Amino acid sequence: MDRKHVVIIGGGFGGLTAARSLHQADVTLIDRTNHHVFQPLLYQVATAALSPGDIAWPLRTLFRSQRNVRVVMDDVLSIDRMDRVVRLQASEPIAFDCLIVAPGSRHAYFGHDEWESSAPGLKTMTDAVQLREKMLLAFEDAERRRGLTGIQNPLTFVIVGGGPTGVELAGALAELGRKAMGPDYPDLRLEDLSIVLVEAGPRLLPGFDAELSAKTAAALTRMGVLIKLGNPVSAVHADGVRVGQEWIPSTNVIWAAGNRASPLLNTLSAPQDSFGRIKIRADLTIPNEPWIFAIGDAAHCLGGDGKPLPAIAPVAMQQGRYVADLIEHGLSEAQRSPFIYKDRGMLATIGRAQAVAQFGSIHVSGILAWLLWCIVHIFFLISFRNRFRVMSEWGWYYLTFQPGARLIFERPARARNVSSADCAHE
Amino acid sequence: MDRKHVVIIGGGFGGLTAARSLHQADVTLIDRTNHHVFQPLLYQVATAALSPGDIAWPLRTLFRSQRNVRVVMDDVLSIDRMDRVVRLQASEPIAFDCLIVAPGSRHAYFGHDEWESSAPGLKTMTDAVQLREKMLLAFEDAERRRGLTGIQNPLTFVIVGGGPTGVELAGALAELGRKAMGPDYPDLRLEDLSIVLVEAGPRLLPGFDAELSAKTAAALTRMGVLIKLGNPVSAVHADGVRVGQEWIPSTNVIWAAGNRASPLLNTLSAPQDSFGRIKIRADLTIPNEPWIFAIGDAAHCLGGDGKPLPAIAPVAMQQGRYVADLIEHGLSEAQRSPFIYKDRGMLATIGRAQAVAQFGSIHVSGILAWLLWCIVHIFFLISFRNRFRVMSEWGWYYLTFQPGARLIFERPARARNVSSADCAHE
Repeated sequence: MDRKHVVIIGGGFGGLTAARSLHQADVTLIDRTNHHVFQPLLYQVATAALSPGDIAWPLRTLFRSQRNVRVVMDDVLSIDRMDRVVRLQASEPIAFDCLIVAPGSRHAYFGHDEWESSAPGLKTMTDAVQLREKMLLAFEDAERRRGLTGIQNPLTFVIVGGGPTGVELAGALAELGRKAMGPDYPDLRLEDLSIVLVEAGPRLLPGFDAELSAKTAAALTRMGVLIKLGNPVSAVHADGVRVGQEWIPSTNVIWAAGNRASPLLNTLSAPQDSFGRIKIRADLTIPNEPWIFAIGDAAHCLGGDGKPLPAIAPVAMQQGRYVADLIEHGLSEAQRSPFIYKDRGMLATIGRAQAVAQFGSIHVSGILAWLLWCIVHIFFLISFRNRFRVMSEWGWYYLTFQPGARLIFERPARARNVSSADCAHE
Repeated sequence: MDRKHVVIIGGGFGGLTAARSLHQADVTLIDRTNHHVFQPLLYQVATAALSPGDIAWPLRTLFRSQRNVRVVMDDVLSIDRMDRVVRLQASEPIAFDCLIVAPGSRHAYFGHDEWESSAPGLKTMTDAVQLREKMLLAFEDAERRRGLTGIQNPLTFVIVGGGPTGVELAGALAELGRKAMGPDYPDLRLEDLSIVLVEAGPRLLPGFDAELSAKTAAALTRMGVLIKLGNPVSAVHADGVRVGQEWIPSTNVIWAAGNRASPLLNTLSAPQDSFGRIKIRADLTIPNEPWIFAIGDAAHCLGGDGKPLPAIAPVAMQQGRYVADLIEHGLSEAQRSPFIYKDRGMLATIGRAQAVAQFGSIHVSGILAWLLWCIVHIFFLISFRNRFRVMSEWGWYYLTFQPGARLIFERPARARNVSSADCAHE
C-alpha cells in the first residue's frame, strides 16, 4: 500500500497525540485556531493567574521538526464518507485515506441553548479571555458604584456544575476575590462578594470517592464558597439563576456542567448517544468504516466498568496513541485488539496548597495532593518553555498574591455601549 | 486651603507619572482601560514577540500602596469648566479642584478617517492584539492557498510612516517573516513575502541625524525591507494603497504616521492646533485656568528650538512630574517657572542587535545602540516583575527565534464569516 494520507480534525489532546505518534503517514491536522490549548488550566486564564500564551502553543511550532505533518487552520463544515473528503469553510475539500475525528465538545445546556449568553462556559481560549474580562469588569463596576454612590452592591458569582472545572473555578475565584483583589478595590467590602457553587447531584466531584468529595466541600466552605447541592438549575436569566425553588440574583453566572459533542459529528451519519457522541466500536472506529476513528470528547467509549469513559485529557491521549498505532502498523480489523483505558488516577485542585487526588484505592488530600497536582500539570505541559513560564508565574502568584494577567482591553465605543446596556439589568 | 482633589484623565506615561508624584492631594485617576501600557513596546506585541501581560500593568495594582489615589475605569465624555466636573459614560460626574488632561492621541489619517479600517494603527493593546491576529491570519491564509492550490500568493505588508514606530515594525516583521515564521510555513516561499516601508518625507527617522537615517535605511534594506521615500499615501483601499503614482496591492497595511489628539480636548473650549492639541501656556495650563493642565500628546508645547515637543514618553513623564510639583507646592501663577524639557536622547531599534541612538552630538549605531536600547527599555518598565518577564521572553526569542505569543483566538461563527468575506478582496 502507498503512503497513507491521514486527516485529523482537531488539535486538542487527542488529535495532537495522534499526529505526534504518526511518522509513516502523511498527516493533515486541521484546527479552527492556530494553537493547542492546555485545557485543564483554562480556569487559571479565566481567573487571571496565567496569560493565554502560558498555556497555549502554536500547532505549527509543535510540528516544526515533524515534516510529515501539515497544519491547516480552518473550520470543518462536514465529513463526506462517500467521497472520502472533509469539507472546509475557507479551503478546498481535503481527501483522506484515514480520518481521525477529534473535534472536542462544547458545554451542554440541556436543551436551553439560550442560557449560554447569560451563563458562558469555559472550553476555549476565547471563552477564558471573555470570562476574565467579564469578571474583572464586574469588580470595576461594583467598586465604581460603591465608591461614587455608597450604595451596597452585592457581587455574586454563580458557578453551575460541581465537577473538577466548577470546583477549580470556585476555589480560584474565592482566592482572587478575597486575597488578590481585596487590596485593589478599597471601596469594596468583602462581605459584598459571594461565590456560589451549584451542583445538581448529591455531592461535589462525583467522579471521586465520597470521602474526597466531603473534604473538597469542607475546604471550599472554609474559603467562603457557598455550596448548593441536590437541585438542578431550572432557569438562567441575565439577572440571575433559579436553582430548585431558589432564585439567586447574579449577573455573573459561569457554566461548568455537562458536555455536548461537536455538531460536526452529525454529518458523519453514524450512531450517536444523547450527548451527540459517536458510539464507536472496540477499535474506536465507526460502524462499517475501519479507517474512520472518533476519539476524545467525540467518542462514546465504554470503560471496564461498563460506563462511558470521562471527557478528560488522559482518555483522549491514550486513544490518540492507540489509533496512531493501528494506522502505523496498517492493522486489519481482524488483527486489532480493543482499546483499553488505563486509569492513572484523578486530581482536582481546590486552592492554594489544597487539592484532592485518587489513584485506585489510594486517596490523598491537602498540600501533598496539591504538590502532586502542580508536578503533574507542569510536566504535562507540552514544551519546556511553557513549563518554565508557568512555574515562574505560579511562583510569583504564590509569593505575592498578585495575579499577572488582569487586563481589560479597550473596546470600541459601540461594544461598550452594548455592554453598559447589558449592565442595566443588574 | 483644604486638601485638593486632583482629577487625572488618562493612565498613560503622563497621567501615571503625575499620579505617582502627588502625595499631598486626593487623586482620582480615570482611564478607559484598567491598565497602563508600555507603549514603546506595543509593536512587539503586534509582532508576537511579547504577550499583552508582559508590557501592561493593572493601574489598581500600581497604586496599591498609594492610598490617596483612587482609580476609576470609565470613558470621559466631556470636561465642564463651568461646573468644575468631568462627565463620564457609566458613572456620576466627578468634581475637581485641579485637572490634569492626559488622554493621549490616536493616529491621524489626514482627513481620511475611512482609511482606518484598511490601515489600522498601533496605539492601544487592542490595536496590537488585532494587528497580531490579522498578521498571523495573513500567513495562515497564504500558506493554505499555496499548499492547497499551488498558486503563488504574494504576501505584502505595507507600513505607512518612517518614524520610530514604522521602522521598528518593519524590522520586527522582516525578522518574524524571514526567520521565525519560515520554518512554520513550509509551503510559503520567502520570495512571496515583501515588507514595504513608506515615508512621505525625504528620509526615515526624521527626528534623528541624517547619518543615522541612512544607516537605518541600509540596515532595513539588508533585512529585505523595501523603502519608499518622498511620496505621501494618496489612497488606501481594502486591497492596496496608492503611494505617489504607484499602486501597491496589499491587504495588510499598517498605519504608523502622524498623531491626532483625543477628541475629548474639543470639549475643553481652549485654543487647539491643527492636530487637535491644546495650545498650553508655559506652565502647561490652558488660558485663564491656572489649575487645568494638558500634558503629553494632548499638549502643543514648544521646545527650546521653537518647535513643538515630540509625542514621546519622556516628554509626557517630565510634564507629569512638573505639574504634580506645582500642585504639591500650591504655587500661584506668579511663583511658577516655565516647563523646560530636558532632552536625554533618542533611541530606535531596527532588529536583532541593530539600533540607532542619538544623545546630543553623540551618535551610536549597531549592536552598541541595541544594547543601550535593551537596557533603557528594560529599566524603564514599571515593575521589577515585568522587567523579569520581558528579559526572559527576549532571551528566549533571541536564542530560539520562536516568538512566544502567536495565538489566534477562535472567533464566533459570524465574525469568521465577516473575516472571510474581507479576504475575498485579496
